[in-house]
Amino acid sequence: MRRRFIGCGLMSGTSRDGVDVAVTEITGRFPANKIKILHAETQAYPASVRALLLRATRGLTAEDVATLDFLLGGLYGQAVLKALRRAHLKPGDIDAIGSHGQTLLHRPRGVMVAGRRVASTLQVGSGAVIAQTTGILTVSDFRSADIAVGGEGAPLVPVYDYVVLRSRTASRIALNIGGIANLTALPRRARIGDISSFDTGPGNSLIDSAVGMVTRGKQRCDRNGTMALSGKPDMREVRTILKHPYFRRQPPKSTGWSEFGEEFASRAVTRMKRRGLSRDAIVSTVTCAVGRSIAEAIRSYVLPRLAPDEIVVTGGGCHNPVLMAILKEAFPRACVDPGEAFGISSDGKEACAFAYLAYLNLKGIPANVISQNSGLRPAVLGVTALTY
Amino acid sequence: MRRRFIGCGLMSGTSRDGVDVAVTEITGRFPANKIKILHAETQAYPASVRALLLRATRGLTAEDVATLDFLLGGLYGQAVLKALRRAHLKPGDIDAIGSHGQTLLHRPRGVMVAGRRVASTLQVGSGAVIAQTTGILTVSDFRSADIAVGGEGAPLVPVYDYVVLRSRTASRIALNIGGIANLTALPRRARIGDISSFDTGPGNSLIDSAVGMVTRGKQRCDRNGTMALSGKPDMREVRTILKHPYFRRQPPKSTGWSEFGEEFASRAVTRMKRRGLSRDAIVSTVTCAVGRSIAEAIRSYVLPRLAPDEIVVTGGGCHNPVLMAILKEAFPRACVDPGEAFGISSDGKEACAFAYLAYLNLKGIPANVISQNSGLRPAVLGVTALTY
Repeated sequence: MRRRFIGCGLMSGTSRDGVDVAVTEITGRFPANKIKILHAETQAYPASVRALLLRATRGLTAEDVATLDFLLGGLYGQAVLKALRRAHLKPGDIDAIGSHGQTLLHRPRGVMVAGRRVASTLQVGSGAVIAQTTGILTVSDFRSADIAVGGEGAPLVPVYDYVVLRSRTASRIALNIGGIANLTALPRRARIGDISSFDTGPGNSLIDSAVGMVTRGKQRCDRNGTMALSGKPDMREVRTILKHPYFRRQPPKSTGWSEFGEEFASRAVTRMKRRGLSRDAIVSTVTCAVGRSIAEAIRSYVLPRLAPDEIVVTGGGCHNPVLMAILKEAFPRACVDPGEAFGISSDGKEACAFAYLAYLNLKGIPANVISQNSGLRPAVLGVTALTY
Repeated sequence: MRRRFIGCGLMSGTSRDGVDVAVTEITGRFPANKIKILHAETQAYPASVRALLLRATRGLTAEDVATLDFLLGGLYGQAVLKALRRAHLKPGDIDAIGSHGQTLLHRPRGVMVAGRRVASTLQVGSGAVIAQTTGILTVSDFRSADIAVGGEGAPLVPVYDYVVLRSRTASRIALNIGGIANLTALPRRARIGDISSFDTGPGNSLIDSAVGMVTRGKQRCDRNGTMALSGKPDMREVRTILKHPYFRRQPPKSTGWSEFGEEFASRAVTRMKRRGLSRDAIVSTVTCAVGRSIAEAIRSYVLPRLAPDEIVVTGGGCHNPVLMAILKEAFPRACVDPGEAFGISSDGKEACAFAYLAYLNLKGIPANVISQNSGLRPAVLGVTALTY
């Protein structure tokens, strides 16, 4: 492998609306790698594919799973080829693709089947298809190995956060507010065994779904928090949302579409409409609930062990002034700023992290988070599809 | 990689009743490898798992897919560890596992989804879980890459047949009668581009299902063809079975459970019961239909290009004297014999082939069949899950 590794990361999040692509340069040696985004873009799914994905997971059959695996694998491959053309690169310039895939379900706590508890996770977007479409070696299915060793299978970015954001002078929280919000706690001078990470709960997924419902599909997100700023949150409803048992569970924990997807949003919006809340008030309320759920998660599960000097916010949520204001107010002693203030791309971060996870896989470096006393074994994450 | 490669192959066939394990030694260089089975055994699925798998694929949800992927991955890993103990080997002695997985569906011809034709295949039994359970590098999901380059994704064994059975003096057909029957045609002095391969149609799956139905589950298979020998086939019903459109399709072609699984068997058995056929007559009839469908496939699609001197029969079907008699009668000029007559294990062959496919993957050698004029690209088959 060249000492300069060029990876292409693909991330398809809980919002199920498209795929982020980040062409990424990795130099140096783990964990002292330098990671630089050369090109990043987002490509929306065709409307027909999005419609398929927006059906609740419980409506999907084994046939849908197989079809989506190949359909999305092909789309991801095409997305890479398109991004490479725009970046003036050729497939031969890329060492590997790292693709998260589209999560159809994620059940780290397991269900009882045939007399035993079986944890599972399911991402579609076949790595074999991506590799054959692009001619580029592809690493995918990063979550399964972590689930197999008893981990949560999520979040997957902490090792990236550790490499990119650990600091000798500041304790940091790397907070990504995507469809789901997750965080990595990085104590000052952290070693890799010192970090912890978990999903705090819903992120933009809840806000976007509410916006879609109150505008009858005319808008898909609350750009710049305009609606949330115009409305006034209903605190009774905020409290109702925050009663979801997920928020009381101790980390490590992870969540997704099945707990906080369209169904959850739909129930909340229906309740608020019935109580006569305005469009803006509804969006303001769910935004407030998301902000508070994150602040509360930090307060309950991070502060007892780490007082953050800096909270590095990435993902779509960092562009939402209401969410940022709630976090700044909740942690007045910390600098709460978008990734750019710390030299990382807020929008490209997650896709970039998957390019890095592909690199770690090919180097045989475990990428699961093993906090002290977790008893988990280190695991190399991802499966590799070769090309010829 | 050591020059002596020890692989462990896992095969779970269309009968959905368990997993074959073959610990295999591979020496030499492709395509002049020597392949030797060190230990082989079959492990039945627990009854509860079998019951889950016997539900028709269309009854399976995305949740079932995810659960089966992890449940079977764990079972396969345990099956390997058990077989290694019996073979007096340790996981550290094994270079790689090659696992076929349990096919839930296989649709190489595709279906229309979101305005495009999407071919797909779906095997469960996560390679990541097998790797983490055993501590052994695992290659799995061999079919996807072949489907991705426009192939049938099946059969997968022809490259193994080529390496093990090609001959300078004889034209051969390697015929495996497992749940589904498939064959590889190997002309005398064949080069790899000269071979062709396809599924002929149902094999033991149809016979076993019929036996299960007529004995109300008391027997699972017609051991030594006892029932078929006692009964007399109903030729009208044999002809009805052979009217299935699959038999008229030109190769390359592949089939499986959705075409020739429990449902197909159930319809045939119900028809015969209604016509008052005895238990033995029913089993005799389906056995005759299977034998004739194979003979007919050879006659229509192989003989025009190759007159076989030898037909090497493997899989459970080679123990069925009725099937063997039908084939011997149909091809009086050929030697029709079980694999053992040619130095290969009839029962261990398919599992052994998957150990070899893992070896090919790790060597970066394409294993898909590319007949002349097929226009297909070579593809390295399988995805690799590493251990740490």
